[in-house]
Formats: sequence, C-alpha cells, structure tokens
Amino acid sequence: MEKRPGGRSARVRDAVRQATLTELAEHGYSGLTVENVAIRSGVHKTTVYRRWGSAEGLIADALELARQEPWPVPDTGSLKEDLREIARLVQSGFADPVAGPVSAAFVTAAVQSSGAARSLHDFFVARHEQAAVVVRRAVDRGELPAGTDVADVIRTAVAPIYYRLFITREPVTERDAERAADAAFAAARAGVIR
Amino acid sequence: MEKRPGGRSARVRDAVRQATLTELAEHGYSGLTVENVAIRSGVHKTTVYRRWGSAEGLIADALELARQEPWPVPDTGSLKEDLREIARLVQSGFADPVAGPVSAAFVTAAVQSSGAARSLHDFFVARHEQAAVVVRRAVDRGELPAGTDVADVIRTAVAPIYYRLFITREPVTERDAERAADAAFAAARAGVIR
Repeated sequence: MEKRPGGRSARVRDAVRQATLTELAEHGYSGLTVENVAIRSGVHKTTVYRRWGSAEGLIADALELARQEPWPVPDTGSLKEDLREIARLVQSGFADPVAGPVSAAFVTAAVQSSGAARSLHDFFVARHEQAAVVVRRAVDRGELPAGTDVADVIRTAVAPIYYRLFITREPVTERDAERAADAAFAAARAGVIR
Repeated sequence: MEKRPGGRSARVRDAVRQATLTELAEHGYSGLTVENVAIRSGVHKTTVYRRWGSAEGLIADALELARQEPWPVPDTGSLKEDLREIARLVQSGFADPVAGPVSAAFVTAAVQSSGAARSLHDFFVARHEQAAVVVRRAVDRGELPAGTDVADVIRTAVAPIYYRLFITREPVTERDAERAADAAFAAARAGVIR
C-alpha cells in the first residue's frame, strides 16, 4: 500500500530531486550528471535519462519542486521588520554550508544553460509573488502608498545581496542584508517604487 | 620610432586585449581560447601563452585595463540625476549589442573561474570608487547626511539591474534603471545607507 501521495512516481521524482541537490552541493553544476544522480538516487539510469534527459532537466525539475514548496513568509506587523527578515533569510541561506552551494549552483547553471535560466526565472517569479505578500499587507494597512510595485520592493530589498555574491564578489553580512532591506523600505515609503 | 606610450609591449598587450574582447563578444567565455586570441590579434601563440597563460589570464588582463580606463562620471549638480545617469549607463551598456555580450561574458567567466572572480571583484572595487565621487559630492554639499556609505549608495543604485539580468533573468528597461537609482537616492536621503 502506498503511504505517500503520488505513489511510486512521486517517490522516484523526490529521490532524483534529493540526489540532484546533493550532487549540486558537492560538485556544483559542472559536476552534475545523469549518471551520478542515477547512482545516488538508486533510480535506474535509463529512467533518469527518459524523464529528465540531462543536467538541465534535473535543474529544471529541482527548481520546479522548490517553487511549489511553502516559504516562511514573515508577518511581524511591520514592513521594515518583514523585509529585514526576508533579506536575512536570503543572506543566511547562501551562508549555509549545505543550502548555500545548492542555491549558488542554480545561479551558475543559469549562466551556462538557457534552459536553466528559464527555470530560474520562473522560480523567481513565484518567489517574488510569495514574498510580495508582506508588501501588499503594508499597502493595505496604509504603511505604503497605493500604486507601489510590490514585487519591486522585494527585488530592491534582496538585489544588493545577490549583487555582492555573484557580481562584485564581496562578502555579505547580516548587517548588509538589513541595510538592503532598510533601503527598500525607505524608498517604498518615499513612494519611488511604483 | 615609437609613437605610442609603452612601445611594442603595450601595443601587443592592446592587440591581445582587443582580440579578447572581440572573441568574448562573439563566442562568450566558453569560446575564449588562447589560440583564437593569438590568431585574431596577430600575436604569436607562444607569446600569448607565455604572457597570459589561459583564458583566465586573458580575462584578468582585459579587466585590469578596463579598470584603469576613464569612466564618464556624471556631474549634473543633483545626486538624483547623477545616480540615474549611472544606472542608465549600466543598463544601456548591457543592452548594447557589442559591449553588452562582453560585459556579460565577464560575469559568466567569474561564475566559472575563481581567478576571473577575483579580477571582477577588483574591477568593481575600482568602479564603485570612481562612481562614488557623485555621492561624496552630494555629502559635501549637504544633500546627504554625513556618515553615508558612499560606495553602498552606488551598489544600491545598480544592484537591481544586475539582479534582473543575471539572477532573475528579467528584462531591464531604462525606467527600471531609473527606479533603482531613485530608490537608492531616497534611501540615502533617509539616512539608512551608512
């Protein structure tokens, strides 16, 4: 009897996804192969080839599953604190010795593969949508002007973290994350993010 | 008689740099090879190997030369306009059919090579320093509070452009660039970038 929703197919998909994440954490995108994911997941290589095709397909599916996962949207009652919490979540995620390399591998994959770039784009559209709830609430309670571009407040709050990590290659502290969030908050309050 | 400063060595370096930029524009980082740069520059392959060693060395030197180049620092008398000008410069640079792919190739190179990442870091340290002059002037004329982190105002003004281009893979319009600049200006005025 199946105990988990989705049955065997979902179990296989989950095993492949877990193996993909572990391979990414250990070897990065350039080391991600269907062979290694098959070995690690215990799923037959021909099955992995047939359903996922390539490293690009494995990335796409891992991001698709990540996109559907619940995400801890803060609700402190203050937009400033909510944005700080989101920025800290991004910063600490990349600093995490396990989750960090996986997230970085997705960005690397997107730079090297247009398929992975599309998957990452879709992931971020969903993530902005999830996170923008905190901004929408702030508009509703009158903390921000109507007409605020809610997704752009999120972009503004997290962009400096990614900029330091992947473009200028500078360290990112919790303080840097909070300052980015505070800047987004101040700009949104001033009514320029619309 | 030498007409250009630096003589033969500088001419060779310049030819190799130009060839590197053209190769990057046409084939990206993954297509950059010492062989192709030698052919295109007319510099002997053994010379290119000896002085630059690899694609990574070619990238490092091209970024080193770019770092030393003058950069059109705006001086409109208004920080808001100066920041908008800087953000538009970044946005239009990436949108340019020739310069855009080269700049993108540097980011791609940094993702794939730690040597290129170090070079890109050094490049951005210098570029922030150059651009931060507009912020320092604004502090001096009392437009911004003393204690403002001048380089971080620049980061805040341009980070959303890079975030859209290389992370979320969203289009970037001139309006997006100006909004990022306006957000940085509002945040700096509010005294939160320090």
